[in-house]
Amino acid sequence: MKEFELIQNIFQASVMANTQERGDILLGIGDDCAQIQVPQGQSLVFSMDTLVEGRHFPFDADPVDIGYRAVATCVSDLAAMGAKPAFFTLGLTIPESDPQWLAGLAQGMAELAEPIGLALVGGDTTKGPLTITLQVHGYVESDMAVLRSGAKIGDDIYVTGLLGDAAAAVPIVTGELQVSSERFDYFYDRYWRPKPRVILGMALKRVVHSMMDISDGLAQDVQHILKASGVGANLDASSLPISSELMKWQPESAVTLALTGGDDYELCFTASKEQAAEIALITQTLSLSCTKVGEIVEEGFCIQGYNGDMSGWQHF
Amino acid sequence: MKEFELIQNIFQASVMANTQERGDILLGIGDDCAQIQVPQGQSLVFSMDTLVEGRHFPFDADPVDIGYRAVATCVSDLAAMGAKPAFFTLGLTIPESDPQWLAGLAQGMAELAEPIGLALVGGDTTKGPLTITLQVHGYVESDMAVLRSGAKIGDDIYVTGLLGDAAAAVPIVTGELQVSSERFDYFYDRYWRPKPRVILGMALKRVVHSMMDISDGLAQDVQHILKASGVGANLDASSLPISSELMKWQPESAVTLALTGGDDYELCFTASKEQAAEIALITQTLSLSCTKVGEIVEEGFCIQGYNGDMSGWQHF
Repeated sequence: MKEFELIQNIFQASVMANTQERGDILLGIGDDCAQIQVPQGQSLVFSMDTLVEGRHFPFDADPVDIGYRAVATCVSDLAAMGAKPAFFTLGLTIPESDPQWLAGLAQGMAELAEPIGLALVGGDTTKGPLTITLQVHGYVESDMAVLRSGAKIGDDIYVTGLLGDAAAAVPIVTGELQVSSERFDYFYDRYWRPKPRVILGMALKRVVHSMMDISDGLAQDVQHILKASGVGANLDASSLPISSELMKWQPESAVTLALTGGDDYELCFTASKEQAAEIALITQTLSLSCTKVGEIVEEGFCIQGYNGDMSGWQHF
Repeated sequence: MKEFELIQNIFQASVMANTQERGDILLGIGDDCAQIQVPQGQSLVFSMDTLVEGRHFPFDADPVDIGYRAVATCVSDLAAMGAKPAFFTLGLTIPESDPQWLAGLAQGMAELAEPIGLALVGGDTTKGPLTITLQVHGYVESDMAVLRSGAKIGDDIYVTGLLGDAAAAVPIVTGELQVSSERFDYFYDRYWRPKPRVILGMALKRVVHSMMDISDGLAQDVQHILKASGVGANLDASSLPISSELMKWQPESAVTLALTGGDDYELCFTASKEQAAEIALITQTLSLSCTKVGEIVEEGFCIQGYNGDMSGWQHF
């Protein structure tokens, strides 16, 4: 497979880095390596994600959806550090070189990457079972990256957006479940079009103590913060932000989905109570919803008002 | 799959970054992102490679071999830029979590990575058909990276080491061909243990005009330099560095293998004739062989003394 020409031609028009316009990208695709000059005063942060067909997305999914969501889920990790998205690399393993499929993938990637200034600078294309590996890179001042390990006793615990919709959408996305077209449209979008909270993450980096993105479900992900910070937490199940669509459709399992369902790609962060007004101002300015769902305590992990199953979300 | 613990436990002892010892690695595995402070005055270069079982290495290959070679082929791209290896990420898709297999993979990676200071800082582990994606990163002064585009008319063309052995080894490695144990040992090693010319690449960066590593075969790879530099070349088939083992085994196809066989991971570079003594000094100091194989000319591509097939090497 002429990997270079393949990527070059299809991705050129969409997400490929224009090195002329970018002082930080000294060299994009086409040499043995890409070359980056990290801007003065900044550190580099990056995250790698691999998506396997049939495991992280259904067989025969729309390539535009796959492309958008692959970038979104990986960029969400940058948001969780408070970093500014900069560039990405793409390791693409495909069973056959289908230009239309590749154009769809590039289009979906560009849909998210272009507006946030995330440029494709390199990668590899190979033949094999459909597997997509992305590494997204961002910049943040070296002492400003928000870690999981910074939570302090007495911090409020917040989540952005709504929880549970993406997990509820899985049987719709796989085709296992038939629903009304209105319900289909809402949940299909909630699964395939997560909105990484990039600007919010950058705005919050000076205000919060710890932050991560919710990919495996709030209950499980909060515990990563607790473990890294050496603290405990009380969550309040009655305060979880759940969409009216989910509440109407699955009133009995909505809270479980919000707690243990993954794929929301919202941010979960902790901050001292003194920052409550500042956080409200930032989220209101960005027109994003943000909900206090609990508090950091000395030890233990308790979810008040919930007695359900906590086994967490399984990939389909 | 508990990706974090899996990687953490198995790779900790071998290739995982020790952030205590490394001022540039602010954050390794365990948060949403890794975080790097590129040293003052340096730029970041990186290359991503994907290896698919059955395509880039045989089914049921020794994981130690796979691990070593995966790192070697990717590090070779750093060498070709004149960069110093710094850290890498690993996207690992495996059909099942086999601790012994993973330990072998980590051991093979460490065999090369540890002595050159290449530390594992992040990645992703998923379930699926065996696919390995590596991104290796290095540092080089921003104006010192050696590109493919710098070849000048009148430059001598050099290659390091010996060419053709790895391509000749493919049928031995796949088990298609039975040979004597002495021959097996030599060629098996030549395929699985390429030696990326890291120190040489760093030493040559101030001396050469253009450089790349030979992965697809000399004839094809030289043409990448020619295209990027807008020049031509005359190669001399009689001067190609070929091992006595290959000459003795396949005297009739040795030159073809040296020209069109891939997987050698030697360096090909061009430099002005005035640098010949300096280059000889550098290569002798490092005890590496280096051979002049041709000259950069105004246009065209000619291989003197060769009338064979030029169709290039096919992955098995």
